[in-house]
Amino acid sequence: MTTLSDSYPAPTNTRGAPYPRVHPDGSITFQLKAPGARRVQVQPGGMDNGLGSEPYDMTRDAEGVWTRTIPSGVPGFHYYWFVVDGLAVNDPGSETFFGYNRQTSGIELPEGPEVAAYYHPQAVPHGDVRLRWYWANTTQSWRRAYIYTPSGYDTDLDKRYPVLYLQHGGGEDERGWTTQGHMNFIMDNAIAAGRAVPMIVVMECNYACEPGQSAPPPVVSLVRTRPPRLSQVITRLIVDDLISMVDGSFRTLTDRTNRAIAGLSMGSCVALQTALHNLDLFDTIGVFSGPPLGDEDDVGMVAAAGGPMDDAAVFNDRVHLLWFGAGTGEPREWGITQRRLVELDEAGIYYTYWETPDVAHEWLTWRRCLNEFVTLLFR
Amino acid sequence: MTTLSDSYPAPTNTRGAPYPRVHPDGSITFQLKAPGARRVQVQPGGMDNGLGSEPYDMTRDAEGVWTRTIPSGVPGFHYYWFVVDGLAVNDPGSETFFGYNRQTSGIELPEGPEVAAYYHPQAVPHGDVRLRWYWANTTQSWRRAYIYTPSGYDTDLDKRYPVLYLQHGGGEDERGWTTQGHMNFIMDNAIAAGRAVPMIVVMECNYACEPGQSAPPPVVSLVRTRPPRLSQVITRLIVDDLISMVDGSFRTLTDRTNRAIAGLSMGSCVALQTALHNLDLFDTIGVFSGPPLGDEDDVGMVAAAGGPMDDAAVFNDRVHLLWFGAGTGEPREWGITQRRLVELDEAGIYYTYWETPDVAHEWLTWRRCLNEFVTLLFR
Repeated sequence: MTTLSDSYPAPTNTRGAPYPRVHPDGSITFQLKAPGARRVQVQPGGMDNGLGSEPYDMTRDAEGVWTRTIPSGVPGFHYYWFVVDGLAVNDPGSETFFGYNRQTSGIELPEGPEVAAYYHPQAVPHGDVRLRWYWANTTQSWRRAYIYTPSGYDTDLDKRYPVLYLQHGGGEDERGWTTQGHMNFIMDNAIAAGRAVPMIVVMECNYACEPGQSAPPPVVSLVRTRPPRLSQVITRLIVDDLISMVDGSFRTLTDRTNRAIAGLSMGSCVALQTALHNLDLFDTIGVFSGPPLGDEDDVGMVAAAGGPMDDAAVFNDRVHLLWFGAGTGEPREWGITQRRLVELDEAGIYYTYWETPDVAHEWLTWRRCLNEFVTLLFR
Repeated sequence: MTTLSDSYPAPTNTRGAPYPRVHPDGSITFQLKAPGARRVQVQPGGMDNGLGSEPYDMTRDAEGVWTRTIPSGVPGFHYYWFVVDGLAVNDPGSETFFGYNRQTSGIELPEGPEVAAYYHPQAVPHGDVRLRWYWANTTQSWRRAYIYTPSGYDTDLDKRYPVLYLQHGGGEDERGWTTQGHMNFIMDNAIAAGRAVPMIVVMECNYACEPGQSAPPPVVSLVRTRPPRLSQVITRLIVDDLISMVDGSFRTLTDRTNRAIAGLSMGSCVALQTALHNLDLFDTIGVFSGPPLGDEDDVGMVAAAGGPMDDAAVFNDRVHLLWFGAGTGEPREWGITQRRLVELDEAGIYYTYWETPDVAHEWLTWRRCLNEFVTLLFR
């Protein structure tokens, strides 16, 4: 039995918004005032979202306030929305988070404070996340990067830093790693503990089109039935515009051993595509919850890579770290990853694999992946 | 007659979203697919929003797509939302903007490119907007500031900078000046042109409560019938926590002649309340579209200030610049400002007044105010 009195507003609510509320047992009560509606449901986002995948019908009271308490799910960040007479709408009590190519409600279902400490602010030195606008020749447009500079960047003026390029997933954007992912707190805590070396982290949007093209359509469908179709434009943007902006205006270490790229889900394909064909620029690749790369389902990863993995000895010599991470609660990407490992074993290609129990194709998996991956970088 | 072919997606849309669309004559077409709805309207935000204040009924086609084209309004940024069978919902095609104490759709109705150049990115050096998390003793909580550092901050390492504290309006938050206000581009362009000296700009949230208090309720009603009730907590936060964090971790000039505070609407009350009672910290105050300060409607501004304006000679000697800006299209705040000027004239208190034609209690007024105000600072 859950009661309101011992529940509290979700940390993802806007200030003062009483709903959604989290109960001590992890169940969540959603509420929406919609007197004119005939049917209201709450719909968890995604296929394997920790809240389930089916919509929950809400119950109307005499004043037209619809309420539903749903069972405890996997902790972490979950997208959700209301469905009002068939129309998907945001919860006015929730902050919005860019996912599914739109601004979407989201709820953080807290873990225990010890377990969650690594992605929450602690009494350690904090870096900044900088919004940096720059002109990209590739797209002939102004673009915005989110750039984490570690604590000390403003004072250790003789120090230069390695750089991690960190890609978001399908339907999200350059804000995701900070807003949904808490990457800055993960980096602050890992650096303060000496688990990671101080580094700059660059997050840009994986969606890019050439001048005159219209904005690209969403590349990942909600049901993820096919591999994302990646544009080469994003790799050209990273190589020709983003890296030169970063190296030109931040105190970076610019050799390939001090530049890594990683991404979650669709972003892992951007990381692979970009790094494998630009190994003069990167020596470390991180793949978090990776879907197939191009026609990998048909030809395997080595062939889908299009050359750079053909000679294992050359690849192993050239690539310092090829890292795969997945949650055991995401059957598709976990399975794809296992298949990759078998193939890479047979091909003699070195890699590191790390998995985390129970969590799904969601941000808690990627927070954990980042927290593990960064400990291995630039050592 | 407007046609779709010569229209274009509003710049405030999410990537690839075709609606809302702006026509060359400035009219706007909104669209929402809601087959299950019985009535759909588009509601411009605010009282004197440039799009009008009444909801516009939308028309349903056979597929359940609702459309409405509304006449050209005042250019600039306008909040809006759909009303679906009485329920206010965001437009999935729009970015969201924090206003009205919730995430809200917004549309930028473009001005001519020359007129608008000052708040758009240009080929000039760009500063960063830094997201900085810090611990506030006043609230016993982690808080986030948006901090603009001008171009050159990372390279002119012997240089120290004056600081402008810039407050948002009622129902908005620390993101407003960057997201809705384009403050970073305004600063970049003003600094590059030599119209403003390089400065740091600090934006924090005006909503703060003491430990154990619940989040404060919204302080400004939608119809603005009464003065905002300000908490003293925000002034204590600024004085005791924010300034020390900023001066402790950025290369600032820390004397009062190099510290200014300004705000829009409710934020102007925060600026006045904070500066007037801490004149050892500030010598410049900017009031953009200011509502009454406390019981100013009954007792006048000098009395409402509670002491610091009682002796005009002392005040004039102490305050380098007291600046008022308003749009002629916001009858309430423009009128309040005129009444203030009469009172201050009679009291012998020096001020600077600037008004801008036609624009309302909206962001275009505040972009213009900022663009003018910053030229006067730290000279």
